[in-house]
Amino acid sequence: MKSDWRVERRAQLAHAPFLQACRKEKSSHTPVWLMRQAGRYQAKYREIRAKYSMLELCQHPEEVTRVTLLPIEQFGMDAAILFSDITIPYLGMNIDFDIVPGVGPVIESPLKDEADVGRLEKFCSKEQLSFVGEAIQLLTRELKVPLIGFAGAPFTMAAYLIEGKPSKDFKNVRKFLFQQPDAWHTLMSYLTDITIDYLKMQVDAGVDALQVFDSWVGALHPRTYEEYLLPHMSRLFTALGSTGVPLIHFGTGTASLLSLMRRAGGDVIGIDWRTPLRESWDALGRECAVQGNFDPAVLFADTTRIQQEADRVLKEIGGEPGHIFNLGHGVLPGTPEDHVRFLVEYVQETTAGA
Amino acid sequence: MKSDWRVERRAQLAHAPFLQACRKEKSSHTPVWLMRQAGRYQAKYREIRAKYSMLELCQHPEEVTRVTLLPIEQFGMDAAILFSDITIPYLGMNIDFDIVPGVGPVIESPLKDEADVGRLEKFCSKEQLSFVGEAIQLLTRELKVPLIGFAGAPFTMAAYLIEGKPSKDFKNVRKFLFQQPDAWHTLMSYLTDITIDYLKMQVDAGVDALQVFDSWVGALHPRTYEEYLLPHMSRLFTALGSTGVPLIHFGTGTASLLSLMRRAGGDVIGIDWRTPLRESWDALGRECAVQGNFDPAVLFADTTRIQQEADRVLKEIGGEPGHIFNLGHGVLPGTPEDHVRFLVEYVQETTAGA
Repeated sequence: MKSDWRVERRAQLAHAPFLQACRKEKSSHTPVWLMRQAGRYQAKYREIRAKYSMLELCQHPEEVTRVTLLPIEQFGMDAAILFSDITIPYLGMNIDFDIVPGVGPVIESPLKDEADVGRLEKFCSKEQLSFVGEAIQLLTRELKVPLIGFAGAPFTMAAYLIEGKPSKDFKNVRKFLFQQPDAWHTLMSYLTDITIDYLKMQVDAGVDALQVFDSWVGALHPRTYEEYLLPHMSRLFTALGSTGVPLIHFGTGTASLLSLMRRAGGDVIGIDWRTPLRESWDALGRECAVQGNFDPAVLFADTTRIQQEADRVLKEIGGEPGHIFNLGHGVLPGTPEDHVRFLVEYVQETTAGA
Repeated sequence: MKSDWRVERRAQLAHAPFLQACRKEKSSHTPVWLMRQAGRYQAKYREIRAKYSMLELCQHPEEVTRVTLLPIEQFGMDAAILFSDITIPYLGMNIDFDIVPGVGPVIESPLKDEADVGRLEKFCSKEQLSFVGEAIQLLTRELKVPLIGFAGAPFTMAAYLIEGKPSKDFKNVRKFLFQQPDAWHTLMSYLTDITIDYLKMQVDAGVDALQVFDSWVGALHPRTYEEYLLPHMSRLFTALGSTGVPLIHFGTGTASLLSLMRRAGGDVIGIDWRTPLRESWDALGRECAVQGNFDPAVLFADTTRIQQEADRVLKEIGGEPGHIFNLGHGVLPGTPEDHVRFLVEYVQETTAGA
């Protein structure tokens, strides 16, 4: 039964514009979804969120399902992304941490050396993070659009573990990798294993695509990326390739890293709000799909300005297959909900049959 | 008298490698100085600093002189940079703020709108920040190498005023400029006036070069820079051009902004630790000098790795005139002093007579 139902869903989604764009196929319109499309800017989200801490909410499959569906019901995006947080695997590692409102993830005892790295626990995502699989199963029965699963990339996961909190330049991570290269590679190997297991579990549970968030990788010089990250990222994407779902590879501040990210892997490369989209696509050899680039802060301007920015982003790709419209980073708290609706509808309408 | 002494100093510095490199002239070796070369990594600095808060120390001309001279005496860099902080002009604006250890500048009441911008006070740097000029006068009598004065660029100054504290993506500044473009341009005009006045005062007092720190400008898309910053930055550099001293224009995360920064102005463009140096110089049309790019975190590795990174940076410019060796950002607290000495000596010796 379960298997039949899945086959039916796959057939239903075969012509989903989001999945077509991931494969660089022509679609009926430019698909649009927004990073953090379920979040604090929504009144309905804030109502639900008031009852739980962030970590509690992420571990509650029914509420995760409700929250994930909210933006789809409200604004009709072309894809849903599982409501969760990149820190969730830390729960399996038995790391003492919290998501502090207005700050982000805060780690009780940041990693200092090889011994600390050695103490990190191995675990099986299917068993210890089963709530994630449950939410995905609930969601795929309801959703008419593709569902994106996700995880933080090993570097970004390591960054929080070493810094202990968000940072503007991740100097402690850079110190760690230059000062203790062996401990660094041990940590990256470990996190790569964890991430492969976690994302494969999500595909087994039913997600239709995966996004790897290497959110803070822009803190590194390309040579540093090549030496300290690339082998691990290549292994990650090679392993995920066997799942058969499209892979999105996202980072911020990556203007100088794009060709290395492409070498690491990904069917779609996510571009932040700072990096020119057309130049990025050219730097990627136009061989993969692209996503992103709309500055989330523009959603605070009036609709004329929003339309202008949307037109800019669309024009830079010029309607070629392989464009997923998205912001360059998550929707910001305080963003007017009407402006999100305006943007989603504008992109879908203006690109329909173009 | 004073004028004679100055003429003599100018003559003495005519063949200073740092000033030659600023002008893209051949020099006896590749000059080297390090951003934040006077700072917490030095035992002698920590001794002095223990007696004052950061803001107190900056307002004490004799101690500023001692601290500015420390790295020159200890490590023999090719240029000194006035010990100060980019927030100093906030004192003249009558803004309630503090430099919080481990955080950075914290503004009591961040700017919200046009009315807040209108309340910012105009002032004369020569009168209200006279301690800066006094320190410069004391320093130029002692120093055998060029002295660099500096200020934050209007965007970076505005960023703290609006965010209220350091930020990893400066989302409130981006919201502000998209949502309230008129208030934004009023603020930028005001800060440009202040910065011109402040830097001209420093040249009058005796500095031999100026560095404009647009440290956080990498948070912006080039089109945002072009529309919201470029007119002000162009005015700033045009006004400073009349001083006759070389102008250094520095920012971080600027891979996509280099040609616009070049259009804004500067004899030297400063490159951070993430952006490939050779590509940057090519993007700048090799028409100006370049400075920076050595990852400050590498100073925590062993000397073999430090030498490797120094060789990489040197090789990317290949000994052409117009290269000032520097880090891509400030020396980090905890950096071994011996490693700083090693780097400075290595660069000076390995490039001598090359």
